[in-house]
Amino acid sequence: MTEPLPQGAVIGILGGGQLGRMLSVAASRLGFKTCIYEPGGDCPASHVSNYHFQKPYEDEDALRQFAEAVDVITYEFENIPTSALDVLDGLKPIRPGREALRVSQDRLTEKDFLTNLGLKTAPYADIPDAASLKAALDTIGAPAILKTRRFGYDGKGQARIMQTSDADAALSDMSGAPAILEGFVDFSHEVSVIGARGVDGQVACFDPGENVHQGGILRTTTLPANLSAAQRTDAVLLTGQILNALDYVGVMGVELFVTPQGLIVNEIAPRVHNSGHWTQQGCSVDQFEQHIRAVAGWPLGDGSRYADVVMENLIGDDMDRVPELAQDPNVSVHLYGKAEVKAGRKMGHVNRVVRRD
Amino acid sequence: MTEPLPQGAVIGILGGGQLGRMLSVAASRLGFKTCIYEPGGDCPASHVSNYHFQKPYEDEDALRQFAEAVDVITYEFENIPTSALDVLDGLKPIRPGREALRVSQDRLTEKDFLTNLGLKTAPYADIPDAASLKAALDTIGAPAILKTRRFGYDGKGQARIMQTSDADAALSDMSGAPAILEGFVDFSHEVSVIGARGVDGQVACFDPGENVHQGGILRTTTLPANLSAAQRTDAVLLTGQILNALDYVGVMGVELFVTPQGLIVNEIAPRVHNSGHWTQQGCSVDQFEQHIRAVAGWPLGDGSRYADVVMENLIGDDMDRVPELAQDPNVSVHLYGKAEVKAGRKMGHVNRVVRRD
Repeated sequence: MTEPLPQGAVIGILGGGQLGRMLSVAASRLGFKTCIYEPGGDCPASHVSNYHFQKPYEDEDALRQFAEAVDVITYEFENIPTSALDVLDGLKPIRPGREALRVSQDRLTEKDFLTNLGLKTAPYADIPDAASLKAALDTIGAPAILKTRRFGYDGKGQARIMQTSDADAALSDMSGAPAILEGFVDFSHEVSVIGARGVDGQVACFDPGENVHQGGILRTTTLPANLSAAQRTDAVLLTGQILNALDYVGVMGVELFVTPQGLIVNEIAPRVHNSGHWTQQGCSVDQFEQHIRAVAGWPLGDGSRYADVVMENLIGDDMDRVPELAQDPNVSVHLYGKAEVKAGRKMGHVNRVVRRD
Repeated sequence: MTEPLPQGAVIGILGGGQLGRMLSVAASRLGFKTCIYEPGGDCPASHVSNYHFQKPYEDEDALRQFAEAVDVITYEFENIPTSALDVLDGLKPIRPGREALRVSQDRLTEKDFLTNLGLKTAPYADIPDAASLKAALDTIGAPAILKTRRFGYDGKGQARIMQTSDADAALSDMSGAPAILEGFVDFSHEVSVIGARGVDGQVACFDPGENVHQGGILRTTTLPANLSAAQRTDAVLLTGQILNALDYVGVMGVELFVTPQGLIVNEIAPRVHNSGHWTQQGCSVDQFEQHIRAVAGWPLGDGSRYADVVMENLIGDDMDRVPELAQDPNVSVHLYGKAEVKAGRKMGHVNRVVRRD
């Protein structure tokens, strides 16, 4: 399929969280329907989609019916079981493609991919066993961080090694899962670039934002980021390099550490990204519409930034602040319709616009 | 109910067209679910809502189930059968309230209401029969326009009387429906104000836009409108007067003719309005979110305008221009997902933003 999807076409989305929700809304704006595949019921994306396959990822029949019901398949999270992808593959286009998923599903593969592109990453080593962890700590040194190679997000599946004597405890935290050791990077701050690449190879990047995390969860993204013009250019160019190397179609989030020695790639996410939510109030075409445009074979939209924005996640009890936030004329509220407030759960976000005079 | 609706509450919307669609999207942004009541299948609003009662307005059981399923009832069109409203009344709050519907469903009642408020309208007369039409034409003169009192929209149910000899043909066009004769107003242009009133009586108005119609259908709305500061103030004040007189809750569209003798009210619509679509790109809180905020008992949002905008409707074959429009960096595309393109059918709209330097 190289023709743009017509009005009324159905975009299949694997995953039914808030990212799928905002993708569905963007798809509706362009006249598309959406079909969500998500095992959980009453999920945020299902509230604003045409169809919801509430089925496990192991249900091959349901996956085939899903593929039958849609015109293109995309996803809101990268940890889709390979077996599910194997069923879907060839039935309908999967965008972004499987190579992007293969690379980003495994921290070791991802680091190797980035290194082979000539990009800088944190020092890292494959940790198949206890012996390799000791050897790697000799080279990389402590403090360092041990992470499962697969299925980590929001700080989960990670253990810090402050001194070499922490090694055994950290390894046992991995519960036998394949792991990777990453050295600490002495960075001043983290930024991210939300990049997009169309079916035709066109690349567009949003302005880099500056991220602040708390407890492993993104807290705020501030635009503009504190970057020199040269760093800004570097950030955008390396994002384009990654997108092209993967023959990527869609939106990608690229997290970067800013150091005196240059930009270091922390990780890539083959999907719309929490640090790109500011685009809803800062750009004509936000990251969600940009992603839908790309996977639907439309031309990419204009992502140039017209306002300064601070995006703040509403996590757990932050929801108590909504009545007050709703009265602030500079704040746009975005809630995800999650039934239950839990500590550490992303319930919504706000974009605070700083008007330029 | 005076407490704001909580997360996960369900907003019931009568009518499933593009206005219901964009209301649903706005409701999702605030964490609400929506339930559409619309006899037609595959309607634009159902694509982005949780539930769709695909039932006729005469189905009293279905109406009761609908009321049971929702926390508040609103609507996207004013011509809801009175019998359906009678069933729903008292089961759940209807916002805007029935008085607004009673007044706006009948052109004669509406003109009387406006006149009693001290506002100017076109000269008008009740036309129960042929004799009254002749008498009214003696007073009002030709050209004039004969309209059905109820169920008119987009120029339907109207007949022009260019000279008194057209009277019989015009009256027969009404097919016996109660009618009203309206004199022509010598106006330079039409503007509209999108006003909002909260449960607490708070009133907020968007900046007036200037409307251009073609063949009885809105073609463009341009911001800012060509108005003096005094006219702008008048337009906003009279909108507030109408909202307060109706003890209104929600968004209302007020169409005004601009004449050398002042502003003349053309008509009022107790709902979000096509001439308010520009707010999606010109304001932090657009008319759809403003309406949802009001009916959900939230504080009204900030509707101050931060950009100049030209909204253009995409009607029928205008859809052929979408590929080109999608590439214009100043254009935001909004499509309604209607399966079939028909002449005169509103298929979508674009907002062209004129950046302020």
